[in-house]
Amino acid sequence: MWKPESLDPENWDDMRKLVHQAVDDSLDYLESIRDRAVWQPAGEDVLQQLKTRAPLEPQGARRAYDDFVSLIRPYQLGNSHPRFWGWYLGGGTVIGALGEFLAAMENSSVAGGNHIGVHVEKQVLDWCRQMVGFPDEASGVLVSGASIGNIIALAVARHVMSEVDVRAHGVAGLARPVAFYTSVEAHSSVQRALELLGLGSCCLRKVRVTERYAIDTDELQQMIDRDRAADVHPWGVIGTAGTTNTGAVDDLATLAAICRKEKMWFHVDGAIGAIVALSSAHRHVVRGMEEADSLTMDLHKWMQVPFEAGCVFVKRRADHRDTFTTTPEYLERHERGISAGDFWLSDYGPQLSRGFRALKIWLSIKEQGTARYARLVDRCMSLAQQFSIRLGETAELKLLAPVVLNIVCFRYDPGGMSPDALNELNRELVMRLQESGVAVPSYTTLDGRFCMRVAFANHRTRAEDLDIFVDAALKLGEKLSRFGRTAE
Amino acid sequence: MWKPESLDPENWDDMRKLVHQAVDDSLDYLESIRDRAVWQPAGEDVLQQLKTRAPLEPQGARRAYDDFVSLIRPYQLGNSHPRFWGWYLGGGTVIGALGEFLAAMENSSVAGGNHIGVHVEKQVLDWCRQMVGFPDEASGVLVSGASIGNIIALAVARHVMSEVDVRAHGVAGLARPVAFYTSVEAHSSVQRALELLGLGSCCLRKVRVTERYAIDTDELQQMIDRDRAADVHPWGVIGTAGTTNTGAVDDLATLAAICRKEKMWFHVDGAIGAIVALSSAHRHVVRGMEEADSLTMDLHKWMQVPFEAGCVFVKRRADHRDTFTTTPEYLERHERGISAGDFWLSDYGPQLSRGFRALKIWLSIKEQGTARYARLVDRCMSLAQQFSIRLGETAELKLLAPVVLNIVCFRYDPGGMSPDALNELNRELVMRLQESGVAVPSYTTLDGRFCMRVAFANHRTRAEDLDIFVDAALKLGEKLSRFGRTAE
Repeated sequence: MWKPESLDPENWDDMRKLVHQAVDDSLDYLESIRDRAVWQPAGEDVLQQLKTRAPLEPQGARRAYDDFVSLIRPYQLGNSHPRFWGWYLGGGTVIGALGEFLAAMENSSVAGGNHIGVHVEKQVLDWCRQMVGFPDEASGVLVSGASIGNIIALAVARHVMSEVDVRAHGVAGLARPVAFYTSVEAHSSVQRALELLGLGSCCLRKVRVTERYAIDTDELQQMIDRDRAADVHPWGVIGTAGTTNTGAVDDLATLAAICRKEKMWFHVDGAIGAIVALSSAHRHVVRGMEEADSLTMDLHKWMQVPFEAGCVFVKRRADHRDTFTTTPEYLERHERGISAGDFWLSDYGPQLSRGFRALKIWLSIKEQGTARYARLVDRCMSLAQQFSIRLGETAELKLLAPVVLNIVCFRYDPGGMSPDALNELNRELVMRLQESGVAVPSYTTLDGRFCMRVAFANHRTRAEDLDIFVDAALKLGEKLSRFGRTAE
Repeated sequence: MWKPESLDPENWDDMRKLVHQAVDDSLDYLESIRDRAVWQPAGEDVLQQLKTRAPLEPQGARRAYDDFVSLIRPYQLGNSHPRFWGWYLGGGTVIGALGEFLAAMENSSVAGGNHIGVHVEKQVLDWCRQMVGFPDEASGVLVSGASIGNIIALAVARHVMSEVDVRAHGVAGLARPVAFYTSVEAHSSVQRALELLGLGSCCLRKVRVTERYAIDTDELQQMIDRDRAADVHPWGVIGTAGTTNTGAVDDLATLAAICRKEKMWFHVDGAIGAIVALSSAHRHVVRGMEEADSLTMDLHKWMQVPFEAGCVFVKRRADHRDTFTTTPEYLERHERGISAGDFWLSDYGPQLSRGFRALKIWLSIKEQGTARYARLVDRCMSLAQQFSIRLGETAELKLLAPVVLNIVCFRYDPGGMSPDALNELNRELVMRLQESGVAVPSYTTLDGRFCMRVAFANHRTRAEDLDIFVDAALKLGEKLSRFGRTAE
């Protein structure tokens, strides 16, 4: 029978063979990832080959895949590797990837309506909410990550704290200036969120931190008092459970108490650290988080769900829904058919088209169980402690910040070098380590001191990887500092 | 050798078998999708089985997959089916799903830096930009869909049109009220975007439409004049290339001319229709789109890329970047290592964690070629025309709106019924058709008339599917109206 052209395979058997081969190649690649360089950049030749005009006529799936194998796979970021400790990324899992495939093959969009994707997302949100100790009545929605989660949470805060209807009248109608407070170590997405919401970065007060890089709560209280005296309306505090730089955790219980007293919104950015609540050994570190009015967490970080996967919770469902819905509650869709159901996820955030990202999370939690995630948290925190002990056993590698979670900041310091020379040495050392393919640390600057930074958020990392890294860092550091000294 | 616990498979061979089986099951399912009901809701028993506590200990990948097969796969939305014509969704493709799998197995986050994901996204954006006729100097970024794309575009408009630095001072510092204009048929995400941006829905003027459901440009000009006279600052016009209700396309060339004359921002929401520019036979319909200052398009709709996939383009790169970046241009990252490179995608939108969604798009365009997408556009538009002709051949099915693109609005009207009874009949008819599993039309209301609505955006739809639908609609309509008449 003649079939009109579609985008389906002309030959299903060929496509089937190709997908099976791609699966085998990918599993081979991941199973043997330890034997490979963590990261290698694509050369000019590869980039030139990549840069082509869009083909006019079909090239076929086989050719597209072959190009992926030669031009793309070897030059990816590398965060599935056990010694990728830069930035703060998870390592991914096979079942997570399978979840993406299965979701895309059916291709549901999960805005709402009467189909299983809505129920699966609801279930996944319930599971995550319980993991982080948020109450039953809280609402939530899956998002691409904490940047969008923070926007949603702060939009709800704006909606609740405003004396005017901001959805109708905008923030131009506010009678007084408003203020949000967060520490200087908070993630840049907090400021970006307030900018997007039309409040402006001027309303963000950046509070100094203690020597543990956590928000100085005395200073916070004084800033609130000063603002009130100046007729500024203090709207909210953004606490951080796990800063990007050092993994510091704010004193969330004290922040909760301040917000309660001052009648302010309390948001916790738990992109990194919310999941610590799952560990009975360590949940005391994030105590107070459960008192927040809103909370973001990332599942593509410590929980290893493939990108993108995050969620945001709001303590009172009505606050959350009223901020975004365009359907009054009394007009909720109760009909039969695909539009039935009174829980529309698009009522809880800015997206209408929404992929079925709940599936990879649902499969992951079922495969692994929550206790295994708790053990993973404990193990990564233990690796960070072991690593800092290992640093202490060397003469040259010096710890620069307290290790609270799974992030360690340190530098190579052979002694006798100027601050500038030390910064320069460590800058070169990070680059050389990344270029060597042995490991990917990243870097930050603490009190003017450039330092290396490793975040143990990869489930594949083992104790032996720490030794490999320390040996390489010592060897390279020695070589660079010898060269540096003779060159001076 | 003893291996510490990770989230990797304990037995890679078992996992390999499972993934291969899942691939076969999925391909079998998709290849035979015509033989299946388009949609069936999950019963209470399924929902009860789904509703469980998160497992504490690992259940294993096999059990998680088996639960997917029995509890999830059969009850998804169904938009991969050739007779799913509700809402406006693409059907997905095998290579798109493979792209999701491959991206997740490596698990890159594509915020920026020196890795191939950044280059692939850049390439994909170039291809899409060329498809819709936007100039070389335009910037772009992949997004989850047009709702987020519209937020980004209108954030840029706000940044450019404001006389104060809105990022620093917020919109409270604006000297005068501002206004955006769009038609009453525009997508709800336009209003939601302005609400999120703190401008408030009060600044959105909804302009009436012509009998073709396109914006009335005379009325628009008068509203702008009235606003200027009232000291309101007209900031921008949002034109629509393909409305959700009827597929109407605004007169974009006239909107462009008005915006040029009035020095206003011109944004086009091309979620549905931007891709029509690819068809030499039909690109005249969206003429003027290329003159826009910003443009959103969805790739998970007519281009069949699995959810989520959309993009937004901005004519002047600096406008786009200045709206979102937190890094001044002179401080751009030029170092070596993973952070190198001066093109950071996170500088062009609110996300920092960003999945490698470019891969599925890259693979798709390479597999299919742009000419095939053009033929798909032509074929879907032709199906819509054939369908409206087919309606004309029946006595009872009446067309309710002009067919401009691939959307047809119509209703069953056997004659002699009151407006209310007709609405009721058609409401019941849509539900029955969905419940029958034969097809999924959706519905809308045009000038108080409830009607059925089909959107031919699925690449699997064939001419024979139209006959199957019309036969079922006539049979069910006849049955319902007979019952209705006897019951009256």
